[in-house]
Amino acid sequence: MKALLIGTKNEHKLREIRDILLRVPLVLQALPASVPEVVEDAPTLEGNAVLKACGYAKATGQPCLAEDTGLEVDALDGAPGVHTARYAGPDADAAANRRKLLAALDGVPLPRRTARFRCVAALARPSGELIATVEGVLEGRIALAERGAGGFGYDPLFLPTGPHDERTLAELSDDEKNAISHRGRAVAALRPKLLESI
Amino acid sequence: MKALLIGTKNEHKLREIRDILLRVPLVLQALPASVPEVVEDAPTLEGNAVLKACGYAKATGQPCLAEDTGLEVDALDGAPGVHTARYAGPDADAAANRRKLLAALDGVPLPRRTARFRCVAALARPSGELIATVEGVLEGRIALAERGAGGFGYDPLFLPTGPHDERTLAELSDDEKNAISHRGRAVAALRPKLLESI
Repeated sequence: MKALLIGTKNEHKLREIRDILLRVPLVLQALPASVPEVVEDAPTLEGNAVLKACGYAKATGQPCLAEDTGLEVDALDGAPGVHTARYAGPDADAAANRRKLLAALDGVPLPRRTARFRCVAALARPSGELIATVEGVLEGRIALAERGAGGFGYDPLFLPTGPHDERTLAELSDDEKNAISHRGRAVAALRPKLLESI
Repeated sequence: MKALLIGTKNEHKLREIRDILLRVPLVLQALPASVPEVVEDAPTLEGNAVLKACGYAKATGQPCLAEDTGLEVDALDGAPGVHTARYAGPDADAAANRRKLLAALDGVPLPRRTARFRCVAALARPSGELIATVEGVLEGRIALAERGAGGFGYDPLFLPTGPHDERTLAELSDDEKNAISHRGRAVAALRPKLLESI
């Protein structure tokens, strides 16, 4: 295991940095294949996140974290939004969704291709009762063409605002993406609730 | 250990959420008492963070993370800034610093008491060579009086902007503070570099 010296004589700072770098351990379990998929038909990201967290918690009798993510493109009045995963149709794959997005933005110059990923994460008790929802947002722009082999979904088209703004999310390492992403922020914001509540 | 179900059928999301919640393990070491304290006489937070990270790394032959934090109060033209730790004098304790800050802001109403904590974290190789610096910022306001028993330094006076803005940092749990704080953001942003470089 890697070793790192924390260069401070301040005991408070030392403890905080320890807590930040070394998270409390959790056993994470994937959804069993036998559990039927929750239908995500709520009109909002929050609604869908809650449907999944509460539905899967109740179905399995376990605390459950679920999320729903939307891409909001300003030049498209916030579309695809809650329809992000099925933008190009109910059975469309990510490549078809990206093609439809590029076509919809044809001719729009980069400065006007502002957009954001919005992720709502929800946490539910084994009874199906909702504990909390949190939101994480990542601002950026839609690139003029796909770039990068990492990530998934719309990542090859998303240029995050900030120090990485010349690379798409699909060109960042997993750690770089998770440190700044909508999902990283939402899930990290849920962690305190999670450690208190489950 | 606590168990949590991740309610998604999407393998990519499952992996990201796992990565976000379960960080790569690291052994963190406190600064040995025998190492002489680095003199923090740089004119900037970044300069002091680099002095400490590089100085302590070289002194111990270990990779080192160090940080320097400043509180910038708009009504005081950015003071105490780089002098945050020694605002009330070279040997002042945190309580004396807080008293001086409250006195300096006497009569300034809450909406004009905007401020931010700025943390610069630096990472150095065992040779003393700098790997990276990152910055984390937490916007907020200076409360009219101290509140809360948690945290340290100016935390009982700092009302962070956002969902917790009616509580001071000293009234948040450690996890709530670390999820939003300047130090939490800076150290989390350094994690990818850290895992790549040491």
